[in-house]
Amino acid sequence: MAKSIVSRTENYSQWYTDIIKKARLAEHSAVRGSMVIRPYGFAIWENMRDHLDQMFKETGHVNAYFPLFIPKSFLSKEADHVEGFAKECAVVTHYRLKNNPDGSGLMVDPDARLEEELIVRPTSETIIWNTYKDWITSYRDLPLLINQWANVVRWEMRTRLFLRTAEFLWQEGHTAHASREEAIEEAERMHEVYATFAENYMAMPVIRGVKSESERFAGALETYTIEALMQDGKALQAGTSHFLGQNFAKAFDVKFSNEENQEEYVWATSWGVSTRLMGALIMTHSDDDGLVLPPKIAPIHVVIVPIPKPTEELAAVAHQIISDLKTRNIHAQYDDDDKSRVGFKFAEHELRGIPVRLGLGQRDLEKNQVEVARRDTKEKTFSPLEGIAEYIENLLNDIQKNLFQKALEFREQNTSYVDTMEEFESVLETKGGFVYAHWDGSPETEEEIKNRTKATIRCIPLDAPEEHGVDLISGKPSKRRVVFAKAY
Amino acid sequence: MAKSIVSRTENYSQWYTDIIKKARLAEHSAVRGSMVIRPYGFAIWENMRDHLDQMFKETGHVNAYFPLFIPKSFLSKEADHVEGFAKECAVVTHYRLKNNPDGSGLMVDPDARLEEELIVRPTSETIIWNTYKDWITSYRDLPLLINQWANVVRWEMRTRLFLRTAEFLWQEGHTAHASREEAIEEAERMHEVYATFAENYMAMPVIRGVKSESERFAGALETYTIEALMQDGKALQAGTSHFLGQNFAKAFDVKFSNEENQEEYVWATSWGVSTRLMGALIMTHSDDDGLVLPPKIAPIHVVIVPIPKPTEELAAVAHQIISDLKTRNIHAQYDDDDKSRVGFKFAEHELRGIPVRLGLGQRDLEKNQVEVARRDTKEKTFSPLEGIAEYIENLLNDIQKNLFQKALEFREQNTSYVDTMEEFESVLETKGGFVYAHWDGSPETEEEIKNRTKATIRCIPLDAPEEHGVDLISGKPSKRRVVFAKAY
Repeated sequence: MAKSIVSRTENYSQWYTDIIKKARLAEHSAVRGSMVIRPYGFAIWENMRDHLDQMFKETGHVNAYFPLFIPKSFLSKEADHVEGFAKECAVVTHYRLKNNPDGSGLMVDPDARLEEELIVRPTSETIIWNTYKDWITSYRDLPLLINQWANVVRWEMRTRLFLRTAEFLWQEGHTAHASREEAIEEAERMHEVYATFAENYMAMPVIRGVKSESERFAGALETYTIEALMQDGKALQAGTSHFLGQNFAKAFDVKFSNEENQEEYVWATSWGVSTRLMGALIMTHSDDDGLVLPPKIAPIHVVIVPIPKPTEELAAVAHQIISDLKTRNIHAQYDDDDKSRVGFKFAEHELRGIPVRLGLGQRDLEKNQVEVARRDTKEKTFSPLEGIAEYIENLLNDIQKNLFQKALEFREQNTSYVDTMEEFESVLETKGGFVYAHWDGSPETEEEIKNRTKATIRCIPLDAPEEHGVDLISGKPSKRRVVFAKAY
Repeated sequence: MAKSIVSRTENYSQWYTDIIKKARLAEHSAVRGSMVIRPYGFAIWENMRDHLDQMFKETGHVNAYFPLFIPKSFLSKEADHVEGFAKECAVVTHYRLKNNPDGSGLMVDPDARLEEELIVRPTSETIIWNTYKDWITSYRDLPLLINQWANVVRWEMRTRLFLRTAEFLWQEGHTAHASREEAIEEAERMHEVYATFAENYMAMPVIRGVKSESERFAGALETYTIEALMQDGKALQAGTSHFLGQNFAKAFDVKFSNEENQEEYVWATSWGVSTRLMGALIMTHSDDDGLVLPPKIAPIHVVIVPIPKPTEELAAVAHQIISDLKTRNIHAQYDDDDKSRVGFKFAEHELRGIPVRLGLGQRDLEKNQVEVARRDTKEKTFSPLEGIAEYIENLLNDIQKNLFQKALEFREQNTSYVDTMEEFESVLETKGGFVYAHWDGSPETEEEIKNRTKATIRCIPLDAPEEHGVDLISGKPSKRRVVFAKAY
């Protein structure tokens, strides 16, 4: 059989790994901690990337490319930043290999030691702000709205495909502004772009909020986040947007002369999403039969399976359907493999999460109909061949909406409101999920709860209503609930 | 003045650097040998990348992503490959930094030394073939047609923006086949894709040929190349496609069982183009006033300049033109800067190589016309406002063709046929360019000519007619001419 996926209830973590492996999305490489993103996984990532890229451009951003390497000394320039990032990273110390005199292969040439070591970028604030220094002199150079698609490396000891790997792909926006207000507006705009992308394209509902101080990005004054809930009741941070204040401008001495010809430090934001979104996508929608993909992200929308096997007549009908669908930007494929059985093919296409499967047999043709199976609900129905393209277009829209709705309902069912530490612990033990509770704003409570339960404050939701309550630990007054959860 | 570009005759090398700097395409970074690709330069690269990516997909290829790091031992596995690549590269030896006890910042943590050093990929054959080993077992897994867009690093001592940098962006195709014939066909197909792209999109005529043995890619049995001629009479290798035989399959033990159920080694190709193409683009078309871009690659096709300055009425007409052009996929911008003079703007837009400039004044409006200036020939003409979008569409096609034609004529004027070493040296000294001469096929002649003149065999042209002659050095018989040139 094509599939042999452990069920979610049996072993959630293995289920996740099985899907990635069996749907051929990615795999571990020979380099510890680094993954290979396989063609089907990469096609999904390309779709996500292209939609995001378009949204960035529509909000006035342009792409650029900055160096992979960062001089070691740059990392020390912003004090908080170095604490957050400088520790676990890949360090380039030499620039040449030579043949080992003992004939055993290659060795590092000790004469080719770099004067200053280079760090493989874990994030690019430092090298970019060092560059912006030369690009910004006047308010007329602002705002600078730049994004970069790149690979980054953070040395991770425990890795999981897509969720935590030493090397991963991401985009990082780095913008420069003339005022605090404009920078905050930008950070909020990109936060909303991420939320819109997650909900409208990935069909993944997210909570929009800001991080507590201890969970902020290293060097940020405010970190906006979108938090999604996975099917095992754990939260996943899916994208962050940071208001960096003037921290990096001060660290790299980036000033501009304002309209009154006075010098000021520049205001900054940065924001990023990564291939981690692939993990979020998988864990939001997939089931025990394999991957489930929202149509807006799926590389292939429809697969047409000839029943019981390919014939010329079926192929002709299939290719007509494919070309009709193409005019609606729907990508369909005909499965003309004549060596596999229909059952095997069905399982394979379900495994790969293709949103719609058409089964086409000789008897269907005679009745001018086709069997339509949707991946999300597994429902099957017969539909007339005439108007099939329009029918599928509507069906794909339905699937997109249904996936979002289903994920939203799951989140609602797995959201709790608690007022005591006892309830808090009980909810976390029995069902997990998002837990709304009062918090006095102190890092001590946050720390205590984390130590006792492993749950962290995912965010202070932007839409939380004002409501009086008391902190779970300190009993001090609190004005609004924050969201706790165990998280990836 | 916006521009202050040294002329080509005065200092060609400085002219090249000036254009990159003044048109804001790229710049050197704080990291020796690494460049920053600025937004306008990156937008041009994005256009090239997107066209190429589409051509790769139309020829059946898919994208994937392989690790940045390669274990040192992998590089030794293919004997020729290691000689060609392993020497000058970035070596990661440690995975952690720590605070320097003397308080001076960060230091490499000596306890975090890698057991095996990692090389930042200079090219990915080794890591990819190590992966293919797990993906290929049967002829049914073949062909494997995979491409990767990535950054690579080759430690270069003398760097030039776009042409030779330590880190650069490229794509690398790596395909696996069941037979020698199929692999050769693939290498030839991608060679032709590159040639078509260079000629039809970059408007850059190229010679299609194969490399002599000494100029082949390290590990290849045949290297197909496209060679372009720059305005200083030097050649530039713009893209290569390699037939790798079974070398990498043997090095990484990648076998498949064929239809007769016998085990065979897999046949391979690899092919790549890089941000070096940006250098080729600049040096093929640009002039002493700045960048000249073929319309099919230009991020902005048309700029509309209000004369003498922006008014609401002019803006309304300009925006109508912009939206008419948009329906034809032509990207136009309105220059509403009210602080710069018209002359400054004209120079600025010429510098950036925008193919068409429209000058729009109040008197033009009264006459229902607009002044149209083309960047390639500098010709100006008046055109009726009615039908202006169609006029511009045709004009852009003309410009595209004209640029190719002009470059082709330049190449023809700078191509010589010589039969003696005296002629050869005289041509190289006086005009440079491509020199067609007979060669007996020996590395000795090649070496001797290189030592005496710095010219190398750029390629053995695929379309060279059979013709009897004698080698310039050895006097031995030769059946066809090969192309020599000094090269970048």
